[in-house]
Amino acid sequence: MAELVRFGVSMDRELLEAFDREIVLKGYANRSEAIRDLIRNQLVEIEWSRDNVEVAGTITLVYDHHVRGLNDLLLEMQHRYAELIISTMHVHLSHDRCLEVLVLKGPAGKAKEVAHRLLSVKGVIHGRLTATSTGEKLV
Amino acid sequence: MAELVRFGVSMDRELLEAFDREIVLKGYANRSEAIRDLIRNQLVEIEWSRDNVEVAGTITLVYDHHVRGLNDLLLEMQHRYAELIISTMHVHLSHDRCLEVLVLKGPAGKAKEVAHRLLSVKGVIHGRLTATSTGEKLV
Amino acid sequence: MAELVRFGVSMDRELLEAFDREIVLKGYANRSEAIRDLIRNQLVEIEWSRDNVEVAGTITLVYDHHVRGLNDLLLEMQHRYAELIISTMHVHLSHDRCLEVLVLKGPAGKAKEVAHRLLSVKGVIHGRLTATSTGEKLV
Amino acid sequence: MAELVRFGVSMDRELLEAFDREIVLKGYANRSEAIRDLIRNQLVEIEWSRDNVEVAGTITLVYDHHVRGLNDLLLEMQHRYAELIISTMHVHLSHDRCLEVLVLKGPAGKAKEVAHRLLSVKGVIHGRLTATSTGEKLV
Repeated sequence: MAELVRFGVSMDRELLEAFDREIVLKGYANRSEAIRDLIRNQLVEIEWSRDNVEVAGTITLVYDHHVRGLNDLLLEMQHRYAELIISTMHVHLSHDRCLEVLVLKGPAGKAKEVAHRLLSVKGVIHGRLTATSTGEKLV
Repeated sequence: MAELVRFGVSMDRELLEAFDREIVLKGYANRSEAIRDLIRNQLVEIEWSRDNVEVAGTITLVYDHHVRGLNDLLLEMQHRYAELIISTMHVHLSHDRCLEVLVLKGPAGKAKEVAHRLLSVKGVIHGRLTATSTGEKLV
Repeated sequence: MAELVRFGVSMDRELLEAFDREIVLKGYANRSEAIRDLIRNQLVEIEWSRDNVEVAGTITLVYDHHVRGLNDLLLEMQHRYAELIISTMHVHLSHDRCLEVLVLKGPAGKAKEVAHRLLSVKGVIHGRLTATSTGEKLV
Repeated sequence: MAELVRFGVSMDRELLEAFDREIVLKGYANRSEAIRDLIRNQLVEIEWSRDNVEVAGTITLVYDHHVRGLNDLLLEMQHRYAELIISTMHVHLSHDRCLEVLVLKGPAGKAKEVAHRLLSVKGVIHGRLTATSTGEKLV
């Protein structure tokens, strides 16, 4: 069970007012929520900088499904990393274009490796690795 | 039908050798493929910096599905932006944690707005907006 | 005169402990200091995304001073933007290589323009625009 | 003496046209120049990800020189890393605010360490580490 603690932060009034304006624009309910997000973003970056830490993430691929052999190749590569790739969603962006999102869980180093492999496949128009976290340490 | 053109690039030998070493590490088949990716990444950034350009992207959310009312709230917000959000995949990361990926297509400004709304929801442990492209101009 | 205010932040104990470990590694004296830095970084990004806001920044250029005409060209371009560029420091990195840092103050849009101009000069090996702030709103 | 080589790149006409539009906007003289910059940016990132590689960079600090003891502390810290910090330029941004730029050369890991130390000093309003290169391998 998560245990909530409370601590004080001191800040110049002007800085706090500038921050308050931004968190309203972004839709945060309160400062604690916004500050927790800043902290989590920093911690996720650190998790991903350490190859052995277990992370979660997504790989987004945009490609043309008419390119001969591409679907098969992507599928085969995904199976080669089956212990990392949990599941996949395929979206038809237009007549020609597909967007595929893969959800990954595993060591950060391995996750970067599979991203490099998939993003460099000929026919993949654009790809991105998105770093997030299993959330175990980011309550 | 896409038309392929070819042009020459001049470069110092040392710079080219350093680049060649990296593209081998990343698994690219050849220099053209790697250079196209560098160019596409830059163009995707530019697309997203202009609010009216139609883009594609994903929003990744990690959250604890035990938080009361969170599933309903996220679902309701997604429906409010139904013209942007094409589909959603849900993954069970662990007993407590869920990862949800939403695929978006629409104007860049609107896509950033829905991301802000979803990422700032209380109970979302970590979230990310991932910018990609409909691929229409990035053949 | 700056006025200090104090407010409470609530957070899960585990998240706070992970944050505390990182701020010790980075050498922060206390949490308030580290949280102010996260907030300032976000506000600086926002300042730079609005073309008319007055910002401060630096442009870093690495180049080979043996390239004929390069020194003159860079100097001439800097004078063309004299109302933005406050001062410049030149460092001899090696026999061939120079590093030059320019300090800028002015509207964000104009600052990006001069950076584009200088970074795209033939003979500039590497260049970067660094966004910071006049600090007026980031006490 | 640098030796220039030339190689062919193949690309879809539409992608090339989009790229050509952007490089005109940014002021590049030709495609080779723009492509070399994309490649150098990537190589600089890689240099900085390896702690033992010798890199160059700058640290930019914005602070209020009225904070008691701050000037002395920053000076003392810079001397502690004298083998890394080549030189420093100080700019008076306003009555209260100073901007200081330090030029660094040394191992990437050490450069990040000194940046962490300086950016976390109480009274530093905003700071940034800017990664560039000695240029030895980025002709």
